[in-house]
Amino acid sequence: MSYYQMNENLSIDYLMKQGIFSETSNLTSREVGDGNLNLVFIVKDTLSGTSVVLKQALPYVRVVGEGWPLSVERTIFEANALEIHNRIVPNLVPKLLHRDDELALIVMEDLSHLELMRYGMMKMEKHPKFAEHISTFLADTLFYTSDMHMSSEEKKRLVAKFINVELCKITEDLVFTDPYYDADRNNINPRLKPYLEEVFWKKTELWLETSKLKYKFLTEAQSLIHGDLHTGSIFAGEEETKIFDAEFAFMGPAAFDVGKIIGNIFINYVSWSGKDEDVEKIQDYRSYLIETVKRLHRLFEKKFIENWKKDAQDISARVEGYRDQFMRNLFIDTIGYCGVVMIRRVHGLAHNIDVDGIENLEKRRDVQVKLLELGEILIMNRHQFNNIEEVTDMLRENIEGAKNL
Amino acid sequence: MSYYQMNENLSIDYLMKQGIFSETSNLTSREVGDGNLNLVFIVKDTLSGTSVVLKQALPYVRVVGEGWPLSVERTIFEANALEIHNRIVPNLVPKLLHRDDELALIVMEDLSHLELMRYGMMKMEKHPKFAEHISTFLADTLFYTSDMHMSSEEKKRLVAKFINVELCKITEDLVFTDPYYDADRNNINPRLKPYLEEVFWKKTELWLETSKLKYKFLTEAQSLIHGDLHTGSIFAGEEETKIFDAEFAFMGPAAFDVGKIIGNIFINYVSWSGKDEDVEKIQDYRSYLIETVKRLHRLFEKKFIENWKKDAQDISARVEGYRDQFMRNLFIDTIGYCGVVMIRRVHGLAHNIDVDGIENLEKRRDVQVKLLELGEILIMNRHQFNNIEEVTDMLRENIEGAKNL
Repeated sequence: MSYYQMNENLSIDYLMKQGIFSETSNLTSREVGDGNLNLVFIVKDTLSGTSVVLKQALPYVRVVGEGWPLSVERTIFEANALEIHNRIVPNLVPKLLHRDDELALIVMEDLSHLELMRYGMMKMEKHPKFAEHISTFLADTLFYTSDMHMSSEEKKRLVAKFINVELCKITEDLVFTDPYYDADRNNINPRLKPYLEEVFWKKTELWLETSKLKYKFLTEAQSLIHGDLHTGSIFAGEEETKIFDAEFAFMGPAAFDVGKIIGNIFINYVSWSGKDEDVEKIQDYRSYLIETVKRLHRLFEKKFIENWKKDAQDISARVEGYRDQFMRNLFIDTIGYCGVVMIRRVHGLAHNIDVDGIENLEKRRDVQVKLLELGEILIMNRHQFNNIEEVTDMLRENIEGAKNL
Repeated sequence: MSYYQMNENLSIDYLMKQGIFSETSNLTSREVGDGNLNLVFIVKDTLSGTSVVLKQALPYVRVVGEGWPLSVERTIFEANALEIHNRIVPNLVPKLLHRDDELALIVMEDLSHLELMRYGMMKMEKHPKFAEHISTFLADTLFYTSDMHMSSEEKKRLVAKFINVELCKITEDLVFTDPYYDADRNNINPRLKPYLEEVFWKKTELWLETSKLKYKFLTEAQSLIHGDLHTGSIFAGEEETKIFDAEFAFMGPAAFDVGKIIGNIFINYVSWSGKDEDVEKIQDYRSYLIETVKRLHRLFEKKFIENWKKDAQDISARVEGYRDQFMRNLFIDTIGYCGVVMIRRVHGLAHNIDVDGIENLEKRRDVQVKLLELGEILIMNRHQFNNIEEVTDMLRENIEGAKNL
């Protein structure tokens, strides 16, 4: 069946035809997509109360419109990644119920009882299990798809399976390139523009260091990475954490996923400086965020090393000192990517509502400048930080110290 | 047509059927393969004097026999690489006349008027154009298949096309792993065994550094590399240089090709210490080899940088300081891979006749120990060398200085 675009009625017809619901169901469908690239329908049987999510790729970038075409084959990458995640970390991702590569759609477990982590964080919600869960997701997906564990052949087959040309290109351009000069696609707070022109775009050393990290993104096929692991790709509740939206997945630098999620937590951390909120509440929530990042990273390293000790197959991975230098390099790159993703969300094409929710453009600008400065510190000093505590100490000193909180 | 194994008569029949020779030809065929993996026929029309080479992959590693099966799909990689080389450096590779992926064969220009470079070097032959030619081959193939020049998409399509599972695995095992412990497949001069057991296999820091270089080989998709660029993969004459046998080609670390060819020249350089040859002749030939390596590397860097200035497409490749750090890293890795390939040819599965031609096993052992020591110096100090002259000075001092030549 060749591609056609779903709407709410068509999504019901399709799911009935596939036998995903019983013939006596009474289905309703609601389009809820708020991302940039896809249609998302929640289809529910009002009789039984069961529901599923149908996600279909659009043949263009939704936020820009039909002027930026994009192949729907990205659904194949998402389905392929989700199949692997379903094997490695079944409790931390939506169940994949059905895939249709021609229609560029997947049908998944409905997780709408959970809230998007980003929205929860904007309301200062705490997710007590998040550090535990995300560290498992990272340690398991990044280790078990690496050369340390996989055979040389299996690993290379994964590289071939995840030649994700278009979505990698989006990251290469929007994350690693456009923010460093006055690119057309940038989306700039007019109050920030003078700072970019007079200060930020003149930082050639910063652009150089970011370009080195970009080169790793282009060439380093280490692990199957999620590729877009921000707080908008995670459902988080009291007890559950579910990571989804893996359409950017490819065999890339493991540190990118780790740095990206930390960077997005740091963005939320900084964003409170521009918000009219009770000072003590902010202080408390920021402490929680810092603890979350520390725990997340400590647990990630611990679990990754445990996986290594237990399941490293390559004899070279057992050479004395090998794991230590690997972990060290992974950490350095993590800090670098963390800085890179903080910067790109300031004035690149895609922003975070954490910051864009600050309506006063001057206040927003001040937060944005702070994010750019912090991103720069992280990128430029990534080789100097010895552990995650030194990173969070720097952040705290820089943000809370300055405000005497 | 499904695979069948060629012999001299069948190779004639096949080429006649393909119309590669005219119907009035009078063909003779001669099997001349001396490699590890293939049959090679020179088929000649005794009337016109024209001739071609037909190369067919065997479904096992020839040197070991049918006990080590190997897919014949490697011919597809060789043909694919040769097509690209025919476009980028047409004068430096054999012309590809015909390919038959089912029969796992390629038909190429006959270059048997030229001598294998390795054999020439064993007779102290000089190849005055070699440095000029090989530096062009390296600079052009490695630059024009990299992210600096190619679009993100073209580059990734090349990665997918060259998922060369089996031949990469051979290098991963035989070059980067087996020589560092008492692996079954090693091929050890019995006089060398005590040194390996008492000294070499205890060098865990060396194994660690080699493992880091192995990891780059496993993960760094920089350029389409030849993958087996030693002096037995090159025909060299007075005026011509032709690089062939690209079946190991894949998207890997650019430095591997550069380091491998230099390492193989160094092996020849060291091998004379074990040979009964006129001292002055040795001295003269070694000076020539040192000059060749220096010129080769200087020219390679010069041409690579010229290509970059002229044809770098990626905006990040034009960021101030980017090219310099790239060239520096390329040099460091080159020296590392140079050391690695020197070591693997001592007691790994595949040796160089330059050294194995030394019949006296004690003399051969002395040369082998020297090669292991030099390989170690190169690998362990690769970050300290500033340029190729410092490398060749070290070599000269170590070999000729010690002998007061």
